[in-house]
Amino acid sequence: MYSLIAERRWTTLLLAAVMSLSFLSLGSPSYAQEGGETATVSETDVLVEEVAEEDLGVGYALDNAVLMFCAVLVFLMQAGFAMVEAGFNSSKNAVNILFKNSMDICVGVVLFFAFGFGIMYPGAYGVDVEEKPYFAFGGFGLDGYEATIDRTFSPEVDWLFQAMFAATAATIVSGAVAGRMKVGAYLIYSAILTGLIYPISGMWKWGGGFLAQEGFQDFAGSAVVHGLGGFAGLAGAIVLGPRLGRYVNGKSIPMLGHSVPIAALGVFILWFGWFGFNPGSQLAFHGLTDSGEQNIDVVMHCAMTTTLAAGAGGLVATLLSWGLFGKPDLSMGLNGILGGLVGITACCDCMSNLQAVAIIGPVAGALVVAGVLMLDKLHIDDPVGAFPVHGLCGVWGCLAIGILENDYLTNGDTSLWIQLKATVIICGWSFVTMFVLFSIMKAVGILRVSEAEEQQGLDISEHGMSAYTN
Amino acid sequence: MYSLIAERRWTTLLLAAVMSLSFLSLGSPSYAQEGGETATVSETDVLVEEVAEEDLGVGYALDNAVLMFCAVLVFLMQAGFAMVEAGFNSSKNAVNILFKNSMDICVGVVLFFAFGFGIMYPGAYGVDVEEKPYFAFGGFGLDGYEATIDRTFSPEVDWLFQAMFAATAATIVSGAVAGRMKVGAYLIYSAILTGLIYPISGMWKWGGGFLAQEGFQDFAGSAVVHGLGGFAGLAGAIVLGPRLGRYVNGKSIPMLGHSVPIAALGVFILWFGWFGFNPGSQLAFHGLTDSGEQNIDVVMHCAMTTTLAAGAGGLVATLLSWGLFGKPDLSMGLNGILGGLVGITACCDCMSNLQAVAIIGPVAGALVVAGVLMLDKLHIDDPVGAFPVHGLCGVWGCLAIGILENDYLTNGDTSLWIQLKATVIICGWSFVTMFVLFSIMKAVGILRVSEAEEQQGLDISEHGMSAYTN
Amino acid sequence: MYSLIAERRWTTLLLAAVMSLSFLSLGSPSYAQEGGETATVSETDVLVEEVAEEDLGVGYALDNAVLMFCAVLVFLMQAGFAMVEAGFNSSKNAVNILFKNSMDICVGVVLFFAFGFGIMYPGAYGVDVEEKPYFAFGGFGLDGYEATIDRTFSPEVDWLFQAMFAATAATIVSGAVAGRMKVGAYLIYSAILTGLIYPISGMWKWGGGFLAQEGFQDFAGSAVVHGLGGFAGLAGAIVLGPRLGRYVNGKSIPMLGHSVPIAALGVFILWFGWFGFNPGSQLAFHGLTDSGEQNIDVVMHCAMTTTLAAGAGGLVATLLSWGLFGKPDLSMGLNGILGGLVGITACCDCMSNLQAVAIIGPVAGALVVAGVLMLDKLHIDDPVGAFPVHGLCGVWGCLAIGILENDYLTNGDTSLWIQLKATVIICGWSFVTMFVLFSIMKAVGILRVSEAEEQQGLDISEHGMSAYTN
Repeated sequence: MYSLIAERRWTTLLLAAVMSLSFLSLGSPSYAQEGGETATVSETDVLVEEVAEEDLGVGYALDNAVLMFCAVLVFLMQAGFAMVEAGFNSSKNAVNILFKNSMDICVGVVLFFAFGFGIMYPGAYGVDVEEKPYFAFGGFGLDGYEATIDRTFSPEVDWLFQAMFAATAATIVSGAVAGRMKVGAYLIYSAILTGLIYPISGMWKWGGGFLAQEGFQDFAGSAVVHGLGGFAGLAGAIVLGPRLGRYVNGKSIPMLGHSVPIAALGVFILWFGWFGFNPGSQLAFHGLTDSGEQNIDVVMHCAMTTTLAAGAGGLVATLLSWGLFGKPDLSMGLNGILGGLVGITACCDCMSNLQAVAIIGPVAGALVVAGVLMLDKLHIDDPVGAFPVHGLCGVWGCLAIGILENDYLTNGDTSLWIQLKATVIICGWSFVTMFVLFSIMKAVGILRVSEAEEQQGLDISEHGMSAYTN
Repeated sequence: MYSLIAERRWTTLLLAAVMSLSFLSLGSPSYAQEGGETATVSETDVLVEEVAEEDLGVGYALDNAVLMFCAVLVFLMQAGFAMVEAGFNSSKNAVNILFKNSMDICVGVVLFFAFGFGIMYPGAYGVDVEEKPYFAFGGFGLDGYEATIDRTFSPEVDWLFQAMFAATAATIVSGAVAGRMKVGAYLIYSAILTGLIYPISGMWKWGGGFLAQEGFQDFAGSAVVHGLGGFAGLAGAIVLGPRLGRYVNGKSIPMLGHSVPIAALGVFILWFGWFGFNPGSQLAFHGLTDSGEQNIDVVMHCAMTTTLAAGAGGLVATLLSWGLFGKPDLSMGLNGILGGLVGITACCDCMSNLQAVAIIGPVAGALVVAGVLMLDKLHIDDPVGAFPVHGLCGVWGCLAIGILENDYLTNGDTSLWIQLKATVIICGWSFVTMFVLFSIMKAVGILRVSEAEEQQGLDISEHGMSAYTN
Repeated sequence: MYSLIAERRWTTLLLAAVMSLSFLSLGSPSYAQEGGETATVSETDVLVEEVAEEDLGVGYALDNAVLMFCAVLVFLMQAGFAMVEAGFNSSKNAVNILFKNSMDICVGVVLFFAFGFGIMYPGAYGVDVEEKPYFAFGGFGLDGYEATIDRTFSPEVDWLFQAMFAATAATIVSGAVAGRMKVGAYLIYSAILTGLIYPISGMWKWGGGFLAQEGFQDFAGSAVVHGLGGFAGLAGAIVLGPRLGRYVNGKSIPMLGHSVPIAALGVFILWFGWFGFNPGSQLAFHGLTDSGEQNIDVVMHCAMTTTLAAGAGGLVATLLSWGLFGKPDLSMGLNGILGGLVGITACCDCMSNLQAVAIIGPVAGALVVAGVLMLDKLHIDDPVGAFPVHGLCGVWGCLAIGILENDYLTNGDTSLWIQLKATVIICGWSFVTMFVLFSIMKAVGILRVSEAEEQQGLDISEHGMSAYTN
């Protein structure tokens, strides 16, 4: 098996996959013809003819445009993660991290198009699975959605927004496994997470699955996105083991990041992107909610609670680190901001502003500090604190909905029990499947680079280039 | 007093403050009950019941969404300032600068929520001060605003936009005082500026105070935001004195920034954010102005004048530096761009495009060069030129309204006298209060780090970490 | 001639130009008076009186706001180019690159205001060329557009969006000529490209010129913007010759970039900005297209195809480099992303999603790799791969419309022949004019720095400062 997937062969395999997509596409205009009598019109014709009848109006246009800009903000979070992870790691691994983060999104959008979206939202947009069976595995059919379907926005912007979420889930892991994983292993895991693991559990909640039906609340994905990514990262960090020299004779030896300015920039960019992630998740920007609020008021509330939780999270993590270590620790402060953002993600719609600034954010900030210390005690090496930030604060955000009174904006009934159960299921699903995956790759010897390569740095050993020259 | 606020105690004090917010929040659902008969319904119920009656329409949704995206752009200016200031300072102080800039926004949003907004916009959103007295000091009550009030956007997006402005004012100072101020002193000043100084003078103009009533024009805050920040920075630079080695035996010794690419990136990000700062300040995006223009036409005009003034400011500062020093100076060019942006901020709505490109921008660019040279002559050490850019060009933008004919888009009557008076009042308010504050901190010995610490760099002495390692 | 434009004189010349603009502006209120009877009202009055009659509605406001945000995204591409080019070049030339990129946009907006827009869109917005003759050469008259004209958005946001495109075209070249061109020569070429070359060929297509009339399709400018910039860059690279030490004794010696993290950030920012570039080019965001689709559906389709082509381009370029060189090459992957973006630019509206992900993107990714290798064989030194990315993929995007069946969304009829002809005309126009211009500058000795200066780096020789110090 090893020889089959030896790294030089990767290119052949993956190129073959892309090429087969190409051939498929050449035949694509014909697939509608397989449907029988409608065969004489292409999807385009259907689209034009049926839509032409009515202008869906300015409200429809607004909802699409706002969702697109939100998706675009979420897209930039890829840059944020790349900068945070590169900055908080050694310069000898920076190219590798940037490679992983840029391929994440490339692989992610291709696979989420090919089948991720289809798995996560089965039957969306009135596509007949029998007629276009591969839609069950993918978004190919998006071009041919029935335009007459009652829709609140274009299926394509829906895809865009959701694809960015999938890519976010994948990229979270990258920080936890930095500095020692082979590129091939990373691409395997990334493809599986984006294409399968995330869409499946995502479907349980956002695709109308059993967690949704039980009343689980997770507005923008504290568990569905961040918890999933954080626990996958934990699995990776455990299976891989710590970087060389990180724990020596039972002593923890800090391995500092090589560029704090870049890491800080990354955090600002992530915060910026979160204004798309959370407010955008309302998915409707005009008209009224079921309970009679203006949709846009809910969106604005999400923006405000998100801001407050981030600020409070950063402040509390800073103050705690100051108290504990004697000096204010910028990396804790920055991770505290991210923790606050992750924590409020599940509940930005239903917490009051006061709850956001005084409970959600501060607890998240404290969890980040506690989590970093805990991992260190356990000798689990998570170079950027991905698990404390995304895993722990992701869980916290979901549980808070069950713990705190939050009838400010109603989004249905839930209970601490349901919240706990669903969060455990999602995070457990991610942790277990990824633990198994990483373990298999470890067993066949394709997971971790050699000691010599690690010492040299992944930039040279895996990519043959350095991040910095003159 | 020193012992009380010795730096290790800070954490205790500030944590206590956050904790007390937490306790308040636990009791928050009950505060509506204190109001008497309405006690049986929570704010949420009020919100739901009263709003449910009508859909405020797509125009309302549009105005909220646009203002949110503008606020989000202004948010990113924090990253811009962080990069500019870090890049233009020594690498041994980079962590400290990034710390200040990231805590700025964290402290800022918490305090502007707790009382800044309440001070700046007294009585906004129909809140009964007697019933909810602490709203006078804060935004706690935002959750409970009367939804039936005639409003053009959600109070929460209003808060968001204004909070970002407050944080901007604070962060301007950070550049002027870089490299020698203690972290504790910085947090004190930042909290006071964001929570009190800025909201008070902001109220004079934007809260309907006496300057507004006299006809003072400052569209997006050349004086209210930038002048205030720039003069506070000047006060800080004077009280602190220059960095060690900056002026030796009467000679000025340039201290170069450690990363021009990062600084340049910051300037691009700031320009990007300014498209939210200036156009967003119209605060209305559909419908007509009082004088009958389309609101959105005014917004677009602001975007265009902003662009032109920035370009002309950068060009003129570059050319001047080229003529004066023999080579085109990139840092002058970049600061010229910022100067042009600051200058047009007050008058982006009322200047013609030609005035923006041929007068506002060029004069601002020249003022930046002149101001940098002037400070150098006076041996005032403002490491990033915060005063020339924000102070001088802020004044210029306001005075230009009084000097130039600008009836292109009417925003009421004003005169050079009123513009001058108001600008002096705002900048003087900031300079004097902050001068006093910095002087007090100097007197009690908590303002400036020791010589040894400064030589070592604030990153190690104040934070125990370096910005760059391998 | 050389003495006239010796570099120290530049400042005088250019300052004089700006000053003359200033004087013009002082007289600007009077130009309307020259028109005869309407002389007693200024443009402002006209604007107010005529617009006051009707509210153009929320749809009008939406279209303006969306176009503004798209323009703002395109603006940030300047930062993206600056980071990509600085990161992929030596640190000794970083200040120079940043200077060129920041002055690009400054010069660009001033000139595109002064005459670029007027050349590109003759007679736009009902301006009477006889009454205001200089409008033929510029946007001065934008302040005085007839407000009653039937318009779908403010002329000012139209200008803003188009100005950002012009600046993009100019900045593409900067990468190809990095490391050896004099600052003065760069400013000459940049001014001529932004102010003349781009507006003239832009008019042929987007100003309703002969290419538009023949049915040439180039939705957002694969050829009009990117091809033009890429071929201008090629001309520059050829005329300048390679950097010292790039090709020695017929051997190619790679000259690595100095900061891959900054370059990668630049690519993320460019992708981010492209969401304004492509979707924004629909220029209408509500209502129906001529063929009866919702405009906003087309916009969302553009966003989705853009995403898919970028992802596929990055993936294929990475895999190809992996196969060819044995290791996955991050810089190829990043350029592959950009190639995919350039390729889909012409056809993001008319290709299906499957075509975008399986043909447009992959072919672009392969072209980037092939183009880089080809230039290397030819010993043409294009330090950042500007020609393969913008030139080759720009051509590909336009030809693909003629090659592939793409009736998904109709945008008129075209043919491979028309596409080929128009692409050759535009790229040839750019290549020939710029080749001549660069050759003239070379002949008079103002094009390239001396060997000593190049060895020292342009930062010191041209700007007297370094990008990095401590």
